[in-house]
Amino acid sequence: MKFWEKEYRSIWQNEEDRRSVCVIDQRKLPFSFEVLTLRSVGDVCEAISGMAVRGAPLIGATAAWGIFFSFIEHCKSRDLVSRVAEDARRLKATRPTAVNLANAVDYMTGVLKDSQEEGVLHEAAASLCDLEAERSRSIGLHGLPLIEDISRQKGGGAVDILTHCNAGWLACVDYGTALAPVYMAHDNGIKVHVWVSETRPRNQGSRLTAWELSNHGIPCTLVTDNAAGHLMQNGMVDMVIVGCDRATANGDVANKIGTYMKALAARDNGVPFYSAFPVSSFDLSVYRPDQITIEERDGNEVRKTEGLTEGHVVKAPHAAAAQTYQPESVYICQPEIPVSNYGFDVTPAGLITGLITDRGICHANRNAIKKLLS
Amino acid sequence: MKFWEKEYRSIWQNEEDRRSVCVIDQRKLPFSFEVLTLRSVGDVCEAISGMAVRGAPLIGATAAWGIFFSFIEHCKSRDLVSRVAEDARRLKATRPTAVNLANAVDYMTGVLKDSQEEGVLHEAAASLCDLEAERSRSIGLHGLPLIEDISRQKGGGAVDILTHCNAGWLACVDYGTALAPVYMAHDNGIKVHVWVSETRPRNQGSRLTAWELSNHGIPCTLVTDNAAGHLMQNGMVDMVIVGCDRATANGDVANKIGTYMKALAARDNGVPFYSAFPVSSFDLSVYRPDQITIEERDGNEVRKTEGLTEGHVVKAPHAAAAQTYQPESVYICQPEIPVSNYGFDVTPAGLITGLITDRGICHANRNAIKKLLS
Repeated sequence: MKFWEKEYRSIWQNEEDRRSVCVIDQRKLPFSFEVLTLRSVGDVCEAISGMAVRGAPLIGATAAWGIFFSFIEHCKSRDLVSRVAEDARRLKATRPTAVNLANAVDYMTGVLKDSQEEGVLHEAAASLCDLEAERSRSIGLHGLPLIEDISRQKGGGAVDILTHCNAGWLACVDYGTALAPVYMAHDNGIKVHVWVSETRPRNQGSRLTAWELSNHGIPCTLVTDNAAGHLMQNGMVDMVIVGCDRATANGDVANKIGTYMKALAARDNGVPFYSAFPVSSFDLSVYRPDQITIEERDGNEVRKTEGLTEGHVVKAPHAAAAQTYQPESVYICQPEIPVSNYGFDVTPAGLITGLITDRGICHANRNAIKKLLS
Repeated sequence: MKFWEKEYRSIWQNEEDRRSVCVIDQRKLPFSFEVLTLRSVGDVCEAISGMAVRGAPLIGATAAWGIFFSFIEHCKSRDLVSRVAEDARRLKATRPTAVNLANAVDYMTGVLKDSQEEGVLHEAAASLCDLEAERSRSIGLHGLPLIEDISRQKGGGAVDILTHCNAGWLACVDYGTALAPVYMAHDNGIKVHVWVSETRPRNQGSRLTAWELSNHGIPCTLVTDNAAGHLMQNGMVDMVIVGCDRATANGDVANKIGTYMKALAARDNGVPFYSAFPVSSFDLSVYRPDQITIEERDGNEVRKTEGLTEGHVVKAPHAAAAQTYQPESVYICQPEIPVSNYGFDVTPAGLITGLITDRGICHANRNAIKKLLS
């Protein structure tokens, strides 16, 4: 999507070196736009676990290139297959919650079993990225009529959509999951306005979603995570759309922590609540929320917040994202305070109005999902 | 309560000057412990609107001294009553949501009508502070059996209590509202553990509640505002206790924004949800949530977070609160992003298990409240 008048994807092939790929270092946004070049499994593991890349679909796409790099590193070894299998395990261990990661790694090791040619593996990883972008576009097309309907009901007035975390093009290869229908609507001339929930502790909302949307020209308003309930109680939200890191066979959705309470507020106020994701985010081996591993992250993410100090911002009020400023961390509590930091929660299927997927929209229940996937 | 081995209240009379009072500058906590001396209505207005003092009961207590200062300033004027009435309006306008502010101001102007002696007004303000402390102690005594019950059910295991914002002794004159039963339980040898919700945008949870509880020796764990739902879904919370800024005649509770979603999560998981406050927080003229004015605050509170940069913290890992370090602000988004910043939300009575007041516990409905107050 658009940034600084140029079209970007969140991951692309390096034109200068076929054996590397480029990603945006998302830890630096919106304060600094820096491109990282990944050339090895180590680079990929670091980028995923350090969250230079994040978002379930992008994690999968990046991990696919990880297997390609692993092949390059070990293709002259006798133990090629077992070495790559070891790297596959390393890659899968970088983040535990999103299923796309394991799916992409398994897909690539499957390709490797059939062919041990660099060109074939390169093509497989590149196609997986294209496919991910195509899936996002498809999610957008399927979700678009939902927004069109509300727009009609409001006589063309702006449709107020609340989202959480970042499930836009930065989280995917292009378009996004939750934000794909929003981009489609905007690009089709439908007035939309997005409530962006800041998403503590890592502030993907304030840092990434607000950046994405405003760069693309979509009106948005940043709010604290605490505000969603009040907005819905007061009729200021027409629909909620969030992403998904893993969906159970019954339609329960693991997503960024805080999603569940937004779903409760939506139900309590009759606001439709959607989760948008490619069908690759279904984990059909899982039937109950408690079967999903919820990542626990470093407590210092909660104790601290990262941002730009006043002096830096004044220097670059508008162009902050086009310049290079290092964000600084501040402690928001005494540093010895004990902390708990779960990364995700599970929204039970019963709270979800519908699942917007690349194959269409379905209700969040086992039969509807079976039918969608058949 | 205890800080640095000494017992404190959040407001006290200045021993050196009978015509002034001292408060802790809560904007600086937990990074710096600074005492402000208030000597005029202007000082009081600034302390309340700038949030050097905050919390419904403490705002009321401080405003009472404001009327005393107004009397001192104007006692030689012919227009004494109308001048004080003007100051009363100024004081009431500093914060719109808490009812205690208006109640305390009205009480003091009532006293002034009967007597225009400095000693009488001084005594009235001092008594109002003592009364507020006594009310908090009483809230604690009434809430204590609820915690004792759960402790018994858990065979003496720690009772896990979730709270939001700061409704401890810093928000009141002493003990607190939501935290009063927690302090009582701890001081009576009952094991408790408090989940502290950080409370964006001003982080009263991470800055004040965590500071209060850990200074008093009560185990607590800081979490993001997003985490409450997940903790309750997973059986990690035995009860929720929050404060209250204004309660309707029907038992709806206006409190720090984010409270409502915690109440929804409590109901969804069968966790008891209590609001604790002195009966002075009832506004019996109000029957519906939409009759309560919800304060909208400066958007930069959302765009920025305040904290201590790493260098400062390293210098004083444990004694941070006993030293003087200025917190710094960092932008967590591009500074031009539009923001909305409501300070409170209203939790409907139907989500509330009980109201813990200084007169006892009652159900959140009109008849029970009438009976309690009769």
